[in-house]
Amino acid sequence: MKKDQDAYGQLVLDHLEHGGQVEIVERDGGFVAASRLGPDAYFAPVRKWPKAERAAIRLARGRVLDVGCGAGRVALHLQERGHEVVAIDVSPLAVEVSKRRGVADARVLSVTRVGPRLGRFDTFVMYGNNFGLMGSARRAPWLLHRFRAIANDGARILAGSTNPYTTDNPEHLAYHRRNRARGRMGGQLRLRIRHGSYATPWFDYLLASPDEMAELADGSGWELARVIDAGEPFYVGVLERVR
Amino acid sequence: MKKDQDAYGQLVLDHLEHGGQVEIVERDGGFVAASRLGPDAYFAPVRKWPKAERAAIRLARGRVLDVGCGAGRVALHLQERGHEVVAIDVSPLAVEVSKRRGVADARVLSVTRVGPRLGRFDTFVMYGNNFGLMGSARRAPWLLHRFRAIANDGARILAGSTNPYTTDNPEHLAYHRRNRARGRMGGQLRLRIRHGSYATPWFDYLLASPDEMAELADGSGWELARVIDAGEPFYVGVLERVR
Repeated sequence: MKKDQDAYGQLVLDHLEHGGQVEIVERDGGFVAASRLGPDAYFAPVRKWPKAERAAIRLARGRVLDVGCGAGRVALHLQERGHEVVAIDVSPLAVEVSKRRGVADARVLSVTRVGPRLGRFDTFVMYGNNFGLMGSARRAPWLLHRFRAIANDGARILAGSTNPYTTDNPEHLAYHRRNRARGRMGGQLRLRIRHGSYATPWFDYLLASPDEMAELADGSGWELARVIDAGEPFYVGVLERVR
Repeated sequence: MKKDQDAYGQLVLDHLEHGGQVEIVERDGGFVAASRLGPDAYFAPVRKWPKAERAAIRLARGRVLDVGCGAGRVALHLQERGHEVVAIDVSPLAVEVSKRRGVADARVLSVTRVGPRLGRFDTFVMYGNNFGLMGSARRAPWLLHRFRAIANDGARILAGSTNPYTTDNPEHLAYHRRNRARGRMGGQLRLRIRHGSYATPWFDYLLASPDEMAELADGSGWELARVIDAGEPFYVGVLERVR
């Protein structure tokens, strides 16, 4: 990643150093908005997490892979609870921020590079909508297989997502329709983060309904065992490794 | 203005109706940021205005033209103080919001269309950096002449601006240098506002130091009589009509 592509990391670093930052997300088709939650959410202590995330994190056990660690909130919490955690993020500056904040093992790594070199895990955490890093209906089964190859018996994925179809915003609904017309999943967002003169490359970020999550998992060696939905936009799907 | 160009007005309307909006500004060259103050500033009652603006508004007298009225904060304040105020904004939705909030005479009009049809004025208010609507070293003297043609004896312009050269941000300093290399004033920002799928046309918005403001006024029928600087990023230049 070139320095001027690390818009996400620069945002997180600026928020750590100066506070008051806003996350600006551009969607293909020219839709630009500030993230609803903003970078505070990346730094939030567990008591300020969405309810579904707070409830689901109690299901974490053993050795944990924190996928898309951001500013390290999940890794820090689980470390405190005594877990061995490997935190990965594609953003070099996010990893730097995570380390500065005390994450013991944070590494610059794309989710697509997750593999046996990381060792085996009992829990995979994809919080803050990071099930979205599954990207698309094509990539999700491939990634879920890769996760399964390094998952211990009884392993779980705590998969944070937002059901995209609960919106009544006509622009979002039109975007879902255009996606489907192009053979994409409705909630498959093509996004980039912008921050000053920094812009990430465009990436696919998948918002999936619980039904879609179950379907993506089907045949991948995982099954959606439980959905933790606290009536927020977020929910956490608990995917369990099929024996 | 096409509906999808009224990003500023849609922002102000969404903020009126739902709150919590963020103003996203794009500068040419690909720099994108949230406005420091955000749309709350467009709705602020006088006690929350920047100090320099609070001090300078006491100099308003007679019939007032509020140039770039936004959500109507200046017009509402001066109406309450008994002034006859004409409020203009190029944004149809901003004018609608101003009317909804009680501005008696708000009109959709570009600053470049200010002329004798509006009648004559004793005070022109350009707050919230709206001296920036002067646009460029070429346009400012032309607009100042037009203002003068409808200005009564003793008329004043309360010209809000920010001295762009007090920054130590290397990206902004590089932007000033590029501007000068292209024969533009350092603080001549080429901007557009983005809000969801709305984007304004690109426009020039001029941030001027007090010295530059004085120089732009020179020979235009106005002179910079006083600078009200309360040590904030903002200052208000008081331009007085030359007899």
